[in-house]
Amino acid sequence: MHAHIVFAHPEARSFNGALADIAEETLAAQGITVTRSDLYGELFDTVEGPAHYGERADEAYFSALAEQRHAGNARTRPADVQREIDRLTAADLVILQFPLWWHAQPAILKGWFDRVFVYGELYTGRRRYDEGHFRGKRALLSVTTGGPAATFSPYGRGGPIERLLWPIHYSLHYMGFDVLPPFVAHGIQGGGIAYEQRDVFEQHLDGLKRGWAERLNTLDSARPIPFTGWQDWDDHGVLRADHPLRWA
Amino acid sequence: MHAHIVFAHPEARSFNGALADIAEETLAAQGITVTRSDLYGELFDTVEGPAHYGERADEAYFSALAEQRHAGNARTRPADVQREIDRLTAADLVILQFPLWWHAQPAILKGWFDRVFVYGELYTGRRRYDEGHFRGKRALLSVTTGGPAATFSPYGRGGPIERLLWPIHYSLHYMGFDVLPPFVAHGIQGGGIAYEQRDVFEQHLDGLKRGWAERLNTLDSARPIPFTGWQDWDDHGVLRADHPLRWA
Repeated sequence: MHAHIVFAHPEARSFNGALADIAEETLAAQGITVTRSDLYGELFDTVEGPAHYGERADEAYFSALAEQRHAGNARTRPADVQREIDRLTAADLVILQFPLWWHAQPAILKGWFDRVFVYGELYTGRRRYDEGHFRGKRALLSVTTGGPAATFSPYGRGGPIERLLWPIHYSLHYMGFDVLPPFVAHGIQGGGIAYEQRDVFEQHLDGLKRGWAERLNTLDSARPIPFTGWQDWDDHGVLRADHPLRWA
Repeated sequence: MHAHIVFAHPEARSFNGALADIAEETLAAQGITVTRSDLYGELFDTVEGPAHYGERADEAYFSALAEQRHAGNARTRPADVQREIDRLTAADLVILQFPLWWHAQPAILKGWFDRVFVYGELYTGRRRYDEGHFRGKRALLSVTTGGPAATFSPYGRGGPIERLLWPIHYSLHYMGFDVLPPFVAHGIQGGGIAYEQRDVFEQHLDGLKRGWAERLNTLDSARPIPFTGWQDWDDHGVLRADHPLRWA
């Protein structure tokens, strides 16, 4: 069993850094090997665009997907993207550790999706969702929010956390991952008001440490988030008219 | 009346480029002045992090919000961020033109949110949502999707488009904008299968041109997406228990 952590925070000493460290330690204690992509530390170039492609599928017109497919066929895929694909390929479990910025993942992690999940080799029109490339692997978001938990509850002003994480969860489902329910640490400062003292930080972290370790120690009993798949949809990609999930 | 377009696509000759051009022409014909941020063309540096801050609020610990606030106070804000803020300040209407990549905006546009909406000057704990900095201004997403319209309908396999755009719409609401219903152009190739011939591209564009121009010509009658605000929430940031929107 092998786990890979994608870490997307500019400060290694942050709460996010601490949560990534806890994951590494907790999983290692189970005998699981762990690797990490440190997107900031490795200066991951997050913007998909012409700059990444030398010999092009089409010099006159840039299409990200056409160039991704072409680079795969021509074996000219950018080295950093290939490295990330190799890391995912080696992993049974992928953890994305990031702070919620503007109701989503930070740009550096959004671009990791844009660049690493390449068209052609990792997905095609048919090879996606429950027939996706990474089926059999599990994915888990570990997210920090600045606001308190109540504001991300169903009637909270931040919006239900499930709704905010939907585009990310659904993208992982699109790639075939079994997506486990997220671990969310709320009310994390640093964030406008940084922790004034390191001991306040440690105190807050201690309170969450157990919950996070507990989640990591019980992954095998976690039920993945249910999504619909190919057999649920009609030829137009819509839930079949007679599907039990339809709300009459 | 002044409009600002934030354009986030790597190819100027793309459908997104054409839609941005149509917006410029259509608004100009109404006597509205139009400016544009071309995030790819201007090489917008999209990753919020220590690299943007010289004299720091805290050299030992990077907190994006603390540094944003400090740079504003110390008048050391990054020039590209200040330029974007100035452009937004001058605009009555802001249009974000982008393709849906991985169920969200491309990383370069996500980072525009991360870096431009600065803590301190543009929002604080109280000055947000319906008391947000940009209240009185309108914002409008113009989005292209690769999949056909049906797959983004309420029972579509892509997920309802309203759900996918929620984090972006809500972020604009957070900043105080009146968010108009989005314009969504579905089934845009280029995208794996690029348009083989320019005339097929032009034909598809022609079919959408009228709808987009029509939307731009009737903005004054468009009703903003309704969101809750400060008077709807209790002290915990949760919809008041007696609120009519509560679903018993």
